[in-house]
Amino acid sequence: MTKRGKFITFEGCDGCGKSTQLKMLSDYLTQNGIAHIFTREPGGGKISEAIRDILLSGKNMEMTDECEALLYAASRVQHLSDRVEPALQEGKLVICDRYVDSSLAYQAYARGLGYEFISQINSFALKNYLPDVTIFIDLTPEAAFARKKGADQNDRLELAGMEFHKRVYAGYDALAKAEPNRIARIDGNKTPQEIFNDVITLLKERDCL
Amino acid sequence: MTKRGKFITFEGCDGCGKSTQLKMLSDYLTQNGIAHIFTREPGGGKISEAIRDILLSGKNMEMTDECEALLYAASRVQHLSDRVEPALQEGKLVICDRYVDSSLAYQAYARGLGYEFISQINSFALKNYLPDVTIFIDLTPEAAFARKKGADQNDRLELAGMEFHKRVYAGYDALAKAEPNRIARIDGNKTPQEIFNDVITLLKERDCL
Repeated sequence: MTKRGKFITFEGCDGCGKSTQLKMLSDYLTQNGIAHIFTREPGGGKISEAIRDILLSGKNMEMTDECEALLYAASRVQHLSDRVEPALQEGKLVICDRYVDSSLAYQAYARGLGYEFISQINSFALKNYLPDVTIFIDLTPEAAFARKKGADQNDRLELAGMEFHKRVYAGYDALAKAEPNRIARIDGNKTPQEIFNDVITLLKERDCL
Repeated sequence: MTKRGKFITFEGCDGCGKSTQLKMLSDYLTQNGIAHIFTREPGGGKISEAIRDILLSGKNMEMTDECEALLYAASRVQHLSDRVEPALQEGKLVICDRYVDSSLAYQAYARGLGYEFISQINSFALKNYLPDVTIFIDLTPEAAFARKKGADQNDRLELAGMEFHKRVYAGYDALAKAEPNRIARIDGNKTPQEIFNDVITLLKERDCL
């Protein structure tokens, strides 16, 4: 019998350096011959990528907060079925770029929909697919935006402004305090290589590598 | 101040004759100069029509039941904001082809996701936009399918088979029994003109016409 793989998620504010870390981790896992898949939220399969297109289109500015939250939850549950569960069963490490904590930080806290509603609509993920380790790249939105200026302006989330991103950060901060065993806080102010060293150290400590 | 319009929904199994009744009602309202809009679930606006495309595509057979239910709920909440609420505020009669009872009959009962989960993900609609009158065209799926044979075979819902549609019917039956004041049962075995007369009589009794 194949040992079930570990499920690792990466979280943080837009521009926190998550993509750089995911690229470095991808190279590391490949070089070390560790069986894994990389995937992302929302998306990762045909149906959830179609949902992602609706969510991230700059043309859909009239989207209600409730609609947005439900679309993320729909994408998530399909993605778990299409990509995450099969890979875990094959014993692979699953690395996911954003997961249920993004919905809690962005929709429950920043959009003000409340922890209870977001937990209810994500109950399938929270009951059956809680990550083994969640890495929160801890960088304030002020620092993150300073790094990211000049990037794509057509992303609906970017247009929501700094006050929104400050609430997202406060949401992540609250989640990390509430679940310190699952959510590991990594200092995002360090250099990319220093951050990556912290990520690898953590994943070894948690028996994921 | 404009008096708020009434919100009327039509429900029933696939092929129950709903579309015919909606067409007859549309003609009647236009001929009698009654301000109204016709809309449908899922869909009715740019975002919810895009969600509808994902839901009804024959290519998306791998869609999980939870994903389907969340997409219907997402489409619903956006549709309420885009089309239903503005029309009600203008004092118009809103006629909607399928609404939250479809999710309860199709997802809670027929797909087996349970009344509690479907109610939770649709809590926005159930708390704020319960219809004034819901017309359930009561026709068994056996009778409905006999009428509909030869229609589009590419609809994902049609492919689910007769056993599924029998569970949908049982769901509607349970809902109509649980909420007899809101959900009016109209005998779908009669001729289209007889059914339409029953619809008009009911809507007049309920102070909607």
